[in-house]
Amino acid sequence: MTALPSPTDDHRWLAMAAALSARGRPLSAPNPAVGCVIVRENRVVARGWTQPGGRPHAEAMALASAGPAACGATIYVSLEPCAHASTRGPACADLVAAAAPARVVVGCYDPDPRTAGAGIARLRAAGIAVDLVPHATCAQALAGFLLRTQEGRPHVTLKLALSLDGMIALANGQSQWITGPQARAHCHAERARADAILVGGGTLRADAPRLDVRLPGLEARSPARWVLTRGAAPEGWQAVADITAPGAFGQTQWLFVEGGAGAAATFLRADRVDRLLLYRAPILLGPGLAAVGDLGLETLAPAHGRWALVEERQLGSDTLSVYDRHR
Amino acid sequence: MTALPSPTDDHRWLAMAAALSARGRPLSAPNPAVGCVIVRENRVVARGWTQPGGRPHAEAMALASAGPAACGATIYVSLEPCAHASTRGPACADLVAAAAPARVVVGCYDPDPRTAGAGIARLRAAGIAVDLVPHATCAQALAGFLLRTQEGRPHVTLKLALSLDGMIALANGQSQWITGPQARAHCHAERARADAILVGGGTLRADAPRLDVRLPGLEARSPARWVLTRGAAPEGWQAVADITAPGAFGQTQWLFVEGGAGAAATFLRADRVDRLLLYRAPILLGPGLAAVGDLGLETLAPAHGRWALVEERQLGSDTLSVYDRHR
Repeated sequence: MTALPSPTDDHRWLAMAAALSARGRPLSAPNPAVGCVIVRENRVVARGWTQPGGRPHAEAMALASAGPAACGATIYVSLEPCAHASTRGPACADLVAAAAPARVVVGCYDPDPRTAGAGIARLRAAGIAVDLVPHATCAQALAGFLLRTQEGRPHVTLKLALSLDGMIALANGQSQWITGPQARAHCHAERARADAILVGGGTLRADAPRLDVRLPGLEARSPARWVLTRGAAPEGWQAVADITAPGAFGQTQWLFVEGGAGAAATFLRADRVDRLLLYRAPILLGPGLAAVGDLGLETLAPAHGRWALVEERQLGSDTLSVYDRHR
Repeated sequence: MTALPSPTDDHRWLAMAAALSARGRPLSAPNPAVGCVIVRENRVVARGWTQPGGRPHAEAMALASAGPAACGATIYVSLEPCAHASTRGPACADLVAAAAPARVVVGCYDPDPRTAGAGIARLRAAGIAVDLVPHATCAQALAGFLLRTQEGRPHVTLKLALSLDGMIALANGQSQWITGPQARAHCHAERARADAILVGGGTLRADAPRLDVRLPGLEARSPARWVLTRGAAPEGWQAVADITAPGAFGQTQWLFVEGGAGAAATFLRADRVDRLLLYRAPILLGPGLAAVGDLGLETLAPAHGRWALVEERQLGSDTLSVYDRHR
C-alpha cells in the first residue's frame, strides 16, 4: 500500500526542489532558475533544474531523466509549469500532462502573464491533481524573477565588509584588508550567484575594482558590472543614474551592491535593499570611512522593524550576518 | 572501591567552583569572589562561595556546611586557600588542614603576597595531597582580582550599544533607543556584576546618565560611578584623569565602561580593554555619532589579532557579541 504524502512531505520535497533550483542560478538568465523533483512512494525518481541560458526547463530535465517512471508519480516543481510554447521547446504544462503523473505540487504561482495560472489550469484540464502549496523557500529562491516580473526591478543584496565599529576603511582610505581570506572567498561565491554587480561612481574612480569572481572554476561566472553615476560608463560597464526607474536594470534578477557608502545609502533611502550581507571583522578602527551614507533620519523610530537576522556564521575570525528586509 | 578522580573530573569540579564563585561577584569586594566544592565518591558534599563584604571565605562556608563529611573528601577551590589569619577569621589553609581532607585541588595560584604559594605549602606540610590545576575558567572568574593584584588595575569591560553600521546615536544626538528592552535589561545585569562603572566627561554632561541597576531586586547592586575627566567629579561620583596611573581605580576589580566614544578610545588606545560587550540592533542609521573615537591607526595591521569572539546570543531582535582581548 502506498502511503499518501502528508503536507509535511510536500513541504520537504518542495524544499528539495528549491535547493535544486539554486544550481541554475544565475546561469538560467533571463529565465527563472526552477527546480523539479519526481517522487514515487517516497523515493526520488528524477531531479531537474533550469539549464544555462534558460532551456531546457527543470520539468523537461526531470521528465527526460524519469522516462516512464513519471507516470503515476508526484511531480514537485518550485514554480508553476509554463503554459507558453517557444521556438526553444514545448510548454512544460503540456510536457508534464503528457507524462501522466498522478499529482503535481507547485511551490509558487508564476506571475508571468504568459502563464499566470494557465499552467495549473492546463494540467487540471488534463485530469491531473494539482496543488499549489505556497512555499517560502521556493519563493525566496525565485525572488529575483518574482520582483522583476511583478515590480520591474531586481532583488538587491547590499554587501558591507566592516569593522566592529562599522568602518569600511581607515580615514586615509586604507581598506585592504578589513576581512580575512575566508570572508573574501565567501563574497566571491556570492558574486557568482548574482547576474549583476554594482558600485558607486566614487568607488569606481577611487578603487577601480575588478568585481570579478576569483574562485577556481568560477572565473567565467563574473556578473555584469554596473556603476551608479549620472555620467558615462567606462568600457565593460553599464551606467545607471536612477535606480528606481522602471526596468533600470533590464532583465537583471539578482543585483549585488558592493558599496561604497553613497551607493549603499541610495539603495537604502529608496528602500530597494532586500538583503544585507555583513562581513564583520573582529577589529576596531575608530573614525574612518563609515559604511552607509546619509539616510535622512531625524528620529530612530523609522530605522526599526526593517531587518530580520536570517543567518549567522563564522568565516575564519570574521562573522557573516545576513538580514532580510521585512516586507 | 572508590574510583580515583580523573583529570577530567578535576576540570569539571573546578568549573563548578568557578561557576559558584560568580555568586559572590561583586559583593565579595574588596576580596576576590571564590568558589569551593567538597566532593566524596563523585558526589557533592558541600558548596560555598565568598560572602558579601568578603567574609566568610568560600572554603569556610563549604567546610561549615560539610561538617565531618569533609574528612577524607576532595576539596575543589577556584583560588589557592589564603595563608594569612585576619581579625575577621582564621586562614583558610589552617581551616582546610584541620578538616583533614584527602586531597585539595586548586584552580588558580594566589598572587597576593600574603599567600603566594604559602597556602598550598601549609596544606602539604599538614600531609594533605594538593594539586594546582591551572584552570582557565577559574582564572577568568578571578580576572579582576588577578589584574588588580598583579598589574594594579581592574578588569575592564567596554560596552557599546550600536546600530549595524556602528552608530551609537543619530547626528542630532538621539540615542533612545538603539537597542530593545531585553538588551537593556541584560546590560543592567552586567552592571550589577561590576563594582565600578565609568563614562566620559562629555557623556556625563550631555546625558547625565544614572548608571544604576534598574532590575527588580538588584537596585542595591548599583556600582560606584566614575567619570573620566581632568575636572572635579559631581556629587556621588569619583573622577579619574589618567586611567593608566597605578592604582587609579583603587580596589576596583571589575570596571564597566559605558562610553562615550572618547572614553572608549582612551581605554582602547591604552590597551586597557579586556572584554567588549557589543549590543547590536538590526537597524542602519547612516552617519551619526560613531562608537569609538580616534585610535591613531595609520594602517590596518595593528587592528588585527586583538579580539576573539567568545559568546554570541540573541536578545529580542538585538544581537549580543562578546569579545575577549587576546593577551
